Amino acid sequence: MSEPSLDALRARMHELKDLGGVLGLLTWDQETYLPAKAGAARAAQLATLQGLYHQRLVAPEVGEWLERAERGASDPDTRAMLKVFRRERDHAVRVPESLVRALAEAQSAGLEAWRQARSERRFDRFTPALTRLLELRREQADAVGHGGERYDALLDHFEPEMTTARLLPVLERLRSALVPLVDALDGAVQGPPVFDGRAFEAERQWQFTLQLLGLLGFDLEAGRQDRSIHPFTGGTHPTDVRLTTRIDARNPSPAVFGTLHEFGHGLYEQGFAPEHHRTPLASSPSMGLHESQSRLWENLVGRSLPFWGFLYPRLRAAFPEALGGVELEDFHRAVNRVQRSPIRVEADEVTYNLHIVLRTSLEVRLLRDELAVEDLPDAWNTEMERTVGLRPRDDVEGVLQDIHWAHGEFGYFPTYALGNLYAASLMRAAEQALPSLWEEVARGELGSLRTWLHTNVHQHGARLPAEERVQAITGEGLTDADFLAYLRAKYGALSGRSLPAAPVPGA
Amino acid sequence: MSEPSLDALRARMHELKDLGGVLGLLTWDQETYLPAKAGAARAAQLATLQGLYHQRLVAPEVGEWLERAERGASDPDTRAMLKVFRRERDHAVRVPESLVRALAEAQSAGLEAWRQARSERRFDRFTPALTRLLELRREQADAVGHGGERYDALLDHFEPEMTTARLLPVLERLRSALVPLVDALDGAVQGPPVFDGRAFEAERQWQFTLQLLGLLGFDLEAGRQDRSIHPFTGGTHPTDVRLTTRIDARNPSPAVFGTLHEFGHGLYEQGFAPEHHRTPLASSPSMGLHESQSRLWENLVGRSLPFWGFLYPRLRAAFPEALGGVELEDFHRAVNRVQRSPIRVEADEVTYNLHIVLRTSLEVRLLRDELAVEDLPDAWNTEMERTVGLRPRDDVEGVLQDIHWAHGEFGYFPTYALGNLYAASLMRAAEQALPSLWEEVARGELGSLRTWLHTNVHQHGARLPAEERVQAITGEGLTDADFLAYLRAKYGALSGRSLPAAPVPGA
Repeated sequence: MSEPSLDALRARMHELKDLGGVLGLLTWDQETYLPAKAGAARAAQLATLQGLYHQRLVAPEVGEWLERAERGASDPDTRAMLKVFRRERDHAVRVPESLVRALAEAQSAGLEAWRQARSERRFDRFTPALTRLLELRREQADAVGHGGERYDALLDHFEPEMTTARLLPVLERLRSALVPLVDALDGAVQGPPVFDGRAFEAERQWQFTLQLLGLLGFDLEAGRQDRSIHPFTGGTHPTDVRLTTRIDARNPSPAVFGTLHEFGHGLYEQGFAPEHHRTPLASSPSMGLHESQSRLWENLVGRSLPFWGFLYPRLRAAFPEALGGVELEDFHRAVNRVQRSPIRVEADEVTYNLHIVLRTSLEVRLLRDELAVEDLPDAWNTEMERTVGLRPRDDVEGVLQDIHWAHGEFGYFPTYALGNLYAASLMRAAEQALPSLWEEVARGELGSLRTWLHTNVHQHGARLPAEERVQAITGEGLTDADFLAYLRAKYGALSGRSLPAAPVPGA
Repeated sequence: MSEPSLDALRARMHELKDLGGVLGLLTWDQETYLPAKAGAARAAQLATLQGLYHQRLVAPEVGEWLERAERGASDPDTRAMLKVFRRERDHAVRVPESLVRALAEAQSAGLEAWRQARSERRFDRFTPALTRLLELRREQADAVGHGGERYDALLDHFEPEMTTARLLPVLERLRSALVPLVDALDGAVQGPPVFDGRAFEAERQWQFTLQLLGLLGFDLEAGRQDRSIHPFTGGTHPTDVRLTTRIDARNPSPAVFGTLHEFGHGLYEQGFAPEHHRTPLASSPSMGLHESQSRLWENLVGRSLPFWGFLYPRLRAAFPEALGGVELEDFHRAVNRVQRSPIRVEADEVTYNLHIVLRTSLEVRLLRDELAVEDLPDAWNTEMERTVGLRPRDDVEGVLQDIHWAHGEFGYFPTYALGNLYAASLMRAAEQALPSLWEEVARGELGSLRTWLHTNVHQHGARLPAEERVQAITGEGLTDADFLAYLRAKYGALSGRSLPAAPVPGA
């Protein structure tokens, strides 16, 4: 009832959001500029700060303020803010501070071990650190509580209100729809080679990605771009959003599509309503919805012919030697080739979700104790063959390829698949709302789409859960119909083949 | 008496040292990579973290642990550690958290206002922020306590055990010795022009400073170098020491001597004994002693003829067009020119301390309320004429030139003069201990000097107060005799002039 409780709570929320921002800087720095020998020191700093964050969140007075504020709140934004905050706090209250600190240390140690294992191309260098991380995550899941399925407790952290029982059938449906699609499309989008052996000078790629960010409408005075091995979006505040990209001097795709992807995340972060800054509402309701924004820009816009009709002359001007003889349509086909690949981040739109199906099934088995860490590389390779249809040459191109497990993140991967589904549904709604959308894109005018996303998604932050937000926009919740329709239309045209029928909707 | 108290205290010290490291990252980032619009967000993050640091330091349980640990400690390192910690805590206990937060916000606002004032070349844009900072520093001085001289309380923060009453006569002695020296030497070190109008490409300067750091022996796996407007040494831990440098494309001196200067600071930070890491002993006992390390490398080594005998061929190879026709001796004379200049960071070794005399006298008057902020530019210009012998063209080249006041630091400037005096005394001791020092320097072998500094200064951290540390090495405490003898010998030879007599020692 009492205003003073809400004021005290707001002050604590500001403090926690500031600490969260500082943690963002520590991890951004760890991936970009931290000197090689400072790994242990950074691990200690992260553990200390995460411990303090935890203490300040679970402190008993915060529980009292929260209860009083909940009784008094009537305005919808305040109620939404309290709901998001309670969610985070209830989780945290159940996890002892010692576990929080142990996890922070194990995460830093995991990153170091993963890097070592990759450089030696030996998974067993990573085994002890990964085993420790799983042990701690199991402990965390049990502390948070679950109805017999530990994975639920971890999944819920990234995708609130999603469960393993609901997720696995969605992924199975995707598998059964995508495997025949990949069979039909693998190698079917043909054209002359574009990237083979051509040189794309790294510094010019870097300058091009910065120019691209400007064209897309990323505010480079409220954010920046740096380089890292594994691209990500981080930062400390909506006025300080930090993207990273990765440059391959033989191929501009990782840099260009990486920048498009992180731009989607970054535009979302920059778009939270200023009145929500320093509160729990200045965040996405789920990683799946966040990923929908990166996928929308990377794939639905960023691999479309209208978009490249605008951008390709600029890319060609940056690399006249390499691209002077390559036509727009051949370039467009080259960046939409469907081809089985062992590497998730290089996968095309059609095979991509199969990589998620694979990882999610392994995560669930690891958390259920049905799979030992020692057996993970073999399980990975077997499952890769069954799902994607090929075997990796070694563990660097297999089980060691992603940073997520090294950082102790289990339950994160499925949000990528959810993001692909949400992105297709949101794009369908945007096309309906903006009849001249693709003509504008073809002229490099992205303002209408940015504004539509800002109005419908970004500014709202965490006011509604992800699926409710999507439903409010599209009239429907989570569905694979828009995604599969998009794939069939696009790749039917690109390949000229007749594709296998869609599964029965809702089956 | 009780071990448990010491253990609990150590854990808190580790936490505080981690938080200090994180604050180091936030300020480093603010000066190097922070996006333009994120100033307010960063100010809030800094204020929050400084507030938490303060809370965790002054918490009552810490006082109890400290008292019990003091009663039980007998080992000298533990006693020294407790002494340093008590010093910091006693200061902090007297300063309320609200003042700490207000200062953090005023510091960030001060930096912004100073940048604005510089870009508009208008001091009055900076007046309100500086007035506010002085107000808060007076409040802080009164809270900490002093015997009628507020400046003492601020000075003591940077140079423990130094007082205004002791400092001002030292500076007056320096003024009376240096003014006639500058009169005799201004323009007397002659030679052909070296930098006028020649181009020193920025990227090559940058590469040269990195190569220089390697030659000097800075561990680039336990530190890094970046660029900033005002060079500084920061970082988060002895394994993560961050230098910055500033590049002027018409003149390599700011970059080269800036790198030499910050290297001196950085080598000190990297050298703290590992067993002291994450404790208060892993720090310098005073800023003056810290500055002695930067001055020793920048000036006593870095402007010597033997050093350039080794380095000059490398610099010439980096800039063959600009330096191809410049002989070593002419270059050496050019970087040792004595010339009145309005800018402190560009001042030569002879005039430099006069800039400190000027700033210190103004600071003391500001803190004594004998000088109003509005009158500061006039007072600066008048005092500059009296001490250095010229008037600045405008406030950017005058009172707005340094970042220190913008960051609310009063009492810091005099430590530069103390550093110059300590550096000369330490160098005399090193020369006595290492008879072939200068022959080694001429061959680019800096290992003996680095080891001597590590053994005598760096590894000890804050075990002894600054002057006791110097006394333990040289047999004498603070003295201007070594510094003035060094100047007379070096510049007598360079100018070929007979110089005015030294003042009576100890007068």
